[in-house]
Amino acid sequence: MRTIEWNSEKKTIQMVDQTLLPQEYRRIECTTIESLCHAIRTLKVRGAPAIGVAGGYGIALAAHTSRSETPEEVLQEVESAAKKINNTRPTAINLSWAINRVMRAIREKSRTKEEIAETALEEAEKIADEDIRTNKKIGEHGATLLQNGDRVLTHCNAGRLACVDWGTALGVIRSAIKNGKEIQVVACETRPLNQGSRLTAWELTQDKIPVTLITESAAGHLMRHGKIDKIIVGADRITKDAVFNKIGTYTHSVLAKEHNIPFYVAAPTSTIDRDHHEEEITLEERDPDELRYIKNIQLAPDNVPVHNPAFDATPIENITAIITERGILHPPLSL
Amino acid sequence: MRTIEWNSEKKTIQMVDQTLLPQEYRRIECTTIESLCHAIRTLKVRGAPAIGVAGGYGIALAAHTSRSETPEEVLQEVESAAKKINNTRPTAINLSWAINRVMRAIREKSRTKEEIAETALEEAEKIADEDIRTNKKIGEHGATLLQNGDRVLTHCNAGRLACVDWGTALGVIRSAIKNGKEIQVVACETRPLNQGSRLTAWELTQDKIPVTLITESAAGHLMRHGKIDKIIVGADRITKDAVFNKIGTYTHSVLAKEHNIPFYVAAPTSTIDRDHHEEEITLEERDPDELRYIKNIQLAPDNVPVHNPAFDATPIENITAIITERGILHPPLSL
Repeated sequence: MRTIEWNSEKKTIQMVDQTLLPQEYRRIECTTIESLCHAIRTLKVRGAPAIGVAGGYGIALAAHTSRSETPEEVLQEVESAAKKINNTRPTAINLSWAINRVMRAIREKSRTKEEIAETALEEAEKIADEDIRTNKKIGEHGATLLQNGDRVLTHCNAGRLACVDWGTALGVIRSAIKNGKEIQVVACETRPLNQGSRLTAWELTQDKIPVTLITESAAGHLMRHGKIDKIIVGADRITKDAVFNKIGTYTHSVLAKEHNIPFYVAAPTSTIDRDHHEEEITLEERDPDELRYIKNIQLAPDNVPVHNPAFDATPIENITAIITERGILHPPLSL
Repeated sequence: MRTIEWNSEKKTIQMVDQTLLPQEYRRIECTTIESLCHAIRTLKVRGAPAIGVAGGYGIALAAHTSRSETPEEVLQEVESAAKKINNTRPTAINLSWAINRVMRAIREKSRTKEEIAETALEEAEKIADEDIRTNKKIGEHGATLLQNGDRVLTHCNAGRLACVDWGTALGVIRSAIKNGKEIQVVACETRPLNQGSRLTAWELTQDKIPVTLITESAAGHLMRHGKIDKIIVGADRITKDAVFNKIGTYTHSVLAKEHNIPFYVAAPTSTIDRDHHEEEITLEERDPDELRYIKNIQLAPDNVPVHNPAFDATPIENITAIITERGILHPPLSL
């Protein structure tokens, strides 16, 4: 079952509401650009590839629900939707990448209102289909890096929930297991939103892949005691000089270096941003209440200042290899 | 107000229930050894120095509440209580240190039932009083290491709540501020039990000491961007070769090394265990549900395996200095 897909009967976007897991697996529908933007901002759909696909479908949704009559007006509406969706989250490149790709297809091919809607959906569906193929290829390439019996640490969720299916970092693990290797996953809970406990642990136990949950704090301790063989994480954006991924990734990379543990990033080439350096990228700062509360439970004083960056940047030198659908990029990485 | 104290009228141990903070500041009473052991095990009282004092008062409580008639019987009861209390938590040395000290005093000085009770309480009160004096001295020594404007990262809670008053790591910060220095604290939330958010953030905001709360994951990111000048943590036990402290301390020490940031441990000399090496010490493994739930909120699948060590060991080489009440121990540390 795809994490996110187009419902062609209703002309809506259907997705797993990732904020309800692990208690409840529920699929929700976005019928408007506003509800889609809300779903992205509140992380009902999250994970760089998945929000890329959400962005692509968003353009299709805007075109399909447009009440404008002329192609020019429809295009204007679609462009306004593109901007709104693009502004929901600043760090992952996949969102703008997918939106731009659908917009380009529309501009190249479509004359009428119907053509705009058709082209947008076609291109969005292509992105979604490609995502699965891409992840399977990332999986095949990455699986060659894993050995039978490896204990692999991962951070956040770069699994099927972060994509349309299969996953990037977890896709590599799935492919290695499919090839007959025994792999044990160590999942960091990933504060403050616990994507590791809520999503990675859930997704792996669903698939009967052995997983042990730890706090981020226990990662260094396990590495020091030789309990981690490899680290694989996903990526939200890869600039010339750094990999942007969930906050905490950088710390894992330093620990990996200290303990001579290979540190792999698994990501589609669409994540690569050749046009920018690290310092040009906006790091999303999220709501302080993510640390002060879990639902209605208070964890910290109401008024305490909080610094809550959603991502960090790991310098390219700290990365052993980047696993893409086109192959494995080894250092020196000339992106 | 002391975190823990003896109520001489009621002959009970009074303490802040640290599990209720930051929502509620409530003082509870332990009237039996069973309720004291429960309070230690469930972390109503926690922090190496504070549980040492709790252990000392526990012996006094056992002697004072004994219904035995002969001194021999009372002593037997007290010894049985000592064992029970000592078994509540294995890693911090202060518990056994304080219990042994009170037991030694009893054995040396007491003949009658009344003398046993008196001596136990006297010695326990000495330990409690000394704790404050010790922390103030740790503070004075440590304050010389801090400069005006320093941004100091700390982990878990080594504050007044972890002691009788003032604190060890936070005591150093309090002393530096008392000496007129401006210090900003960066507190890690400290998963899975959030002593950083619940206790350190609470205690510092109460005292109007500037504090910013972060996830453990953000620590490396901040260090890389030059936003942390010093790190100070407490300790639960210091062997010849390692400092045992809250899980995550080791990771901070590796990050400190990577970024050339001084890494200080503030602890009374009673924390030093000259008789053991790291490998001989039991690391407490706590309930998996600490990661699966926060109160009634489910964070991870019920059946997911969890590894939840409460402490880790940081090799002595990673430590810039140990701040004790007797002075600052610089490397090479010959304990």
